[in-house]
Amino acid sequence: MDAAAIKKELAERAALVEAHLEGCLKECDIPPGLLEAMEYSLLGGGKRLRPVLCLTFAELFGLPAAAAMPFAAAFELIHSYSLIHDDLPAMDDDDLRRGKPSNHKAYGEAYAILAGDGLNTEAFRLCCEAGVHVPAGRVLEATRLLAVAAGAAGMVGGQALDMDFTDRPGVSLPELQDMHARKTGALIRAACECGAVLAGADAAGRTAAKTYGAAVGSAFQIVDDILDIVGDEATLGKPVGSDLEKNKTTYPSLLGLDASRKLAEDRVDQAVAALAAYTGPKAELLVRLARYIVERVQ
Amino acid sequence: MDAAAIKKELAERAALVEAHLEGCLKECDIPPGLLEAMEYSLLGGGKRLRPVLCLTFAELFGLPAAAAMPFAAAFELIHSYSLIHDDLPAMDDDDLRRGKPSNHKAYGEAYAILAGDGLNTEAFRLCCEAGVHVPAGRVLEATRLLAVAAGAAGMVGGQALDMDFTDRPGVSLPELQDMHARKTGALIRAACECGAVLAGADAAGRTAAKTYGAAVGSAFQIVDDILDIVGDEATLGKPVGSDLEKNKTTYPSLLGLDASRKLAEDRVDQAVAALAAYTGPKAELLVRLARYIVERVQ
Repeated sequence: MDAAAIKKELAERAALVEAHLEGCLKECDIPPGLLEAMEYSLLGGGKRLRPVLCLTFAELFGLPAAAAMPFAAAFELIHSYSLIHDDLPAMDDDDLRRGKPSNHKAYGEAYAILAGDGLNTEAFRLCCEAGVHVPAGRVLEATRLLAVAAGAAGMVGGQALDMDFTDRPGVSLPELQDMHARKTGALIRAACECGAVLAGADAAGRTAAKTYGAAVGSAFQIVDDILDIVGDEATLGKPVGSDLEKNKTTYPSLLGLDASRKLAEDRVDQAVAALAAYTGPKAELLVRLARYIVERVQ
Repeated sequence: MDAAAIKKELAERAALVEAHLEGCLKECDIPPGLLEAMEYSLLGGGKRLRPVLCLTFAELFGLPAAAAMPFAAAFELIHSYSLIHDDLPAMDDDDLRRGKPSNHKAYGEAYAILAGDGLNTEAFRLCCEAGVHVPAGRVLEATRLLAVAAGAAGMVGGQALDMDFTDRPGVSLPELQDMHARKTGALIRAACECGAVLAGADAAGRTAAKTYGAAVGSAFQIVDDILDIVGDEATLGKPVGSDLEKNKTTYPSLLGLDASRKLAEDRVDQAVAALAAYTGPKAELLVRLARYIVERVQ
């Protein structure tokens, strides 16, 4: 599978996710103004990395992608809400997201807070809907994993630490790693593990998914920090240099660019090693996806 | 059961809920600053109406209160997060809540947003923990009901409509009722229905719980609007007259005080009628609780 083939395969999966996302709020009785604000941030592209990981791990352990889809989609709702709230004036105060005005710039702060709250909560509705195709015990365990990963000890806690660290001199590498393991790592790791849990994987399978996810999540964040320095604004859809401007401690600021690149590559090697026991097209896709993450430019 | 006995019984249940709330975040690895902000709003009193309703309906249909407790506690986390976000400057901009500074006054806006997000997400972790004592299929169905009630078509959607209606002249009674059925009604109704679902109640039992919950939720809101005019600030722990000051349409502003009181009493009668088929101390407690809601002064 070459780079073009992997991009095509990922794009096809992202398109399946996109189609599910487009329908998942429409059937509910959401007030139109709120629905518009939620879909503004949820729809219209993005890599859909977390749902694609969840689906592919489900398939690796024998569950059809369609059965895992509502649960996989929930990860994108959580990710999307976190971006809306992170962009708020009281938080990172970002005006631009994916090349267009951030949610609060388009709909005002009150609606941006509510759109985020709505997406966070609807995500758990989607999780429960996976119970139509998957045994309830597995769905419940996966839902618990998602809540822990997205919650106050995971993603939300990571954002709290990120706020604390901004402008604070002397943030150490272990502190930075802990913050990122929560803020971006936990959700990516949970996406992989939940796919395995939904498919009824054994303990070794769950561990493989978790190890892969933690390593890929870490690599993803390191590359994000690198791209904020060397990336292209038009390709990224957001301004570069914002970490420096906000006095944020990053991997490059602590380690330099070269050592940061090396660390990202090591993490990808760890992710690949975690899947050594698995063969076939799904395992190959996951290996390629891990490698693709350090090669990405957006 | 007289008024003193019902107050005592409710207080005992609220104390059981309080004890569970005090422990439910401690065992997690939440960054200390964020944990403090979450517990600031979650702990320290309140009527714990939603958990008490959930527990009592579970008991009415034969499930021990202890088995329903983690799920019941989830309702208080959701209620607590909604108060934090509603108080934010971009929303209702309230400085005082339960007689002390609102969360953003005590911890700043960023932490208040994150404390709310954390409580919203941890609530769904607690739901899943009910799976230890209750069959997974029931827990999953109850979790879905909670997500729908708390989400964009329910509580969050109601807050969005409330924002739209503020300062808008000519809000009609059906519009006001729809907004409140979402904003406060949905969660109270779901607390009752989830208790029944967790206990494995039949369709008639679920309908009774839902009808009771919808009627009690409506009565509760009408009394809230009345207390904002005739209540005592010290007893309520918040300023009275704030609805008028914010140009909010309320039941008294549309119907007058007497007709509003009559409507609340009618709702309580509906709630009581919904439980006509049930006897015993739990049914009696629920009937008393409904009557207590229109008699309350805080």
